[in-house]
Amino acid sequence: SQVFKVAVLPGDGIGPEVMAEALRVLDAIEKKYDVKFERTHANVGGAGIDLEGKALPETTVAICKSSDAILFGSVGGPKWETLPPDEQPERGALLPLRKIFGLYANLRPAIIFPSLTGASSLKEEVIAGGFNVLVIRELTGGIYFAQPKGIEGEGRDRVGFDTMRYSVPEIERITHVAFQAARKRGKRVCSIDKANVLSSSVLWREVVTGIAKEYPDVELSHMYVDNAAMQLVRWPKQFDVILCENMFGDILSDEAAMLTGSLGMLPSASLAEGTFGMYEPSGGSAPDIAGQGIANPIAQILSMGMMLRFSFGMVDAADAIDNAVAKVLDQGCRTRDIFQEKPGEKLVNTKEMGDAIIAAL
Amino acid sequence: SQVFKVAVLPGDGIGPEVMAEALRVLDAIEKKYDVKFERTHANVGGAGIDLEGKALPETTVAICKSSDAILFGSVGGPKWETLPPDEQPERGALLPLRKIFGLYANLRPAIIFPSLTGASSLKEEVIAGGFNVLVIRELTGGIYFAQPKGIEGEGRDRVGFDTMRYSVPEIERITHVAFQAARKRGKRVCSIDKANVLSSSVLWREVVTGIAKEYPDVELSHMYVDNAAMQLVRWPKQFDVILCENMFGDILSDEAAMLTGSLGMLPSASLAEGTFGMYEPSGGSAPDIAGQGIANPIAQILSMGMMLRFSFGMVDAADAIDNAVAKVLDQGCRTRDIFQEKPGEKLVNTKEMGDAIIAAL
Ligand SMILES: CC(C)[C@H](C(=O)O)[C@@H](O)C(=O)O
Ligand SMILES: CC(C)[C@H](C(=O)O)[C@@H](O)C(=O)O
Repeated sequence: SQVFKVAVLPGDGIGPEVMAEALRVLDAIEKKYDVKFERTHANVGGAGIDLEGKALPETTVAICKSSDAILFGSVGGPKWETLPPDEQPERGALLPLRKIFGLYANLRPAIIFPSLTGASSLKEEVIAGGFNVLVIRELTGGIYFAQPKGIEGEGRDRVGFDTMRYSVPEIERITHVAFQAARKRGKRVCSIDKANVLSSSVLWREVVTGIAKEYPDVELSHMYVDNAAMQLVRWPKQFDVILCENMFGDILSDEAAMLTGSLGMLPSASLAEGTFGMYEPSGGSAPDIAGQGIANPIAQILSMGMMLRFSFGMVDAADAIDNAVAKVLDQGCRTRDIFQEKPGEKLVNTKEMGDAIIAAL
Repeated sequence: SQVFKVAVLPGDGIGPEVMAEALRVLDAIEKKYDVKFERTHANVGGAGIDLEGKALPETTVAICKSSDAILFGSVGGPKWETLPPDEQPERGALLPLRKIFGLYANLRPAIIFPSLTGASSLKEEVIAGGFNVLVIRELTGGIYFAQPKGIEGEGRDRVGFDTMRYSVPEIERITHVAFQAARKRGKRVCSIDKANVLSSSVLWREVVTGIAKEYPDVELSHMYVDNAAMQLVRWPKQFDVILCENMFGDILSDEAAMLTGSLGMLPSASLAEGTFGMYEPSGGSAPDIAGQGIANPIAQILSMGMMLRFSFGMVDAADAIDNAVAKVLDQGCRTRDIFQEKPGEKLVNTKEMGDAIIAAL
């Protein structure tokens, strides 16, 4: 049977609890399909700082390097908020991981499950029947990483600066990811930029337009980022795949995720060239409810499903997980964050949700 | 009696129609208060391109220079969309105007009038009683204007780049604007940045924190831009004044404006040091309904009111305009964009809305 190596980085807050459920679902997948997942646990985020002195310890990097994929929980919490920004759990773990492993393609689905429309702060009429947007964010370029960047001068003469930069190949490869994803779903890509102001966006738009010609079956449109921030609120169903550079993707993917009303449901994938990838829930570490066993494990379980799909090519198993989650929701299983006290709903804890999903597999 | 000189730039689309109503309200103000407004009309945007060859003709700049304030309509439309970005009506008029006149402080209220909550795409329970957020956006710095910026290289070796830069004095002066505005309202400033990634944001946060000490009566909080994009959707009422650098303000002010559901209602002010300012509706030129006499003139009228308040110090007259608008809405007057077919509502056209506001003055 095939063997895949998974680096397991539970992190902080609810991370370990929801990770435990994802790993139990992984056990069920092992039993059902002829495959083995060799798991190695490693510290990251606040746990990394507390146990090994930094948010991304070298041992953790080494474990990730010898793995086929990273399953990431969540990081951060009040305990580490007073550290300098670049030593904090989120920033200090995520940015280096993205760079070291070349995780240039961030896939963030923003989906409202039809049975959960009530959780959105959008009106019923705006989201009737749910919506399903996939934000594809460039993750290793742009203003996050380009140089020069810094603060120069003394006192009131100081100047802070950053550089937003994109090369043609950087834009090309993320554009291919977006068009290939669109092919498998609504066949529409909306590329976001600020080409009326930014030179990097002018190049972005030109390159995206060129690549689009290789995908005549997919429709391309362009939208300015400020307008996109409005259109997501006005009528999210107009979007299929949204393609963004790094910072615009940071902002719009969070906006889109919040519009669904159920952050605890949303997975994400950060992919390198080849099959390596990192998979993590879109929500945060929710320190306020950590340790109580009541967190929603679905985002972590769906992230694990994305790992099976994108890193291990196990499309059937990934579909099975997606379907199991949908089924369990249809059955009315609800952790506290998605519980709406409607008839047919059953309040469950983290472990019971895991059990239900395993049973539904 | 006092005389103020106003440069009137109606622009394109619905601009001229709604401007006509704002000027009629200005006539009413002249009669009611001991003041004269000397108006000089000038071309801008598509009208500038068509009549004088560019979006911001020199004659227009000269007229603005010899005025005490600019009353701006709206620019843009399909006719000019194929021009290079920096020659287009919006980009080609607005960016030079901001730079030439040093309009560094952009004030964009996002207000839901209690009688218009139905227009928002947010749920009734999220916005019950309306909300009132003031976005204060730095408008002459950051990635919009800093150098270097451009595209270098040939073919696939090309690289596009922009520079985000802020100096201490630039951050200080916009921070003062935000705190002074907050003092007159909810006494809370939420400063937006991305200090976990951007060096310019690290400086931004530090300078804002320092200036805040001069305003012990105003509460300061900091929020990352991605989180702000989420929090606006989740619970807009948590905000009073939102302080942003240029690009984050572009994105968040549009998101906040759309959350109100009535873009046609929202004014904006762009202020220079001293009393000079430019005043314009937040919405666009709406070419689809231009020339039909059905556009909502309220944003233009409220923008004119902001001119009286900020450039001419006519606080009473500005309050009178705000109150007249509120009264007319309470009376049920509705242009098509805000008509909800509820009992007590009366559908009116652009001119009738102007009449009603003048009557209510
Ligand atoms: C923690 C931070 C550096 C990170 C980012 O901005 O990319 C986070 O917001 C995210 O979206 O994963
Ligand atoms: C037209 C464009 C350059 C402008 C901006 O980005 O500032 C517009 O979006 C605005 O917000 O006034």
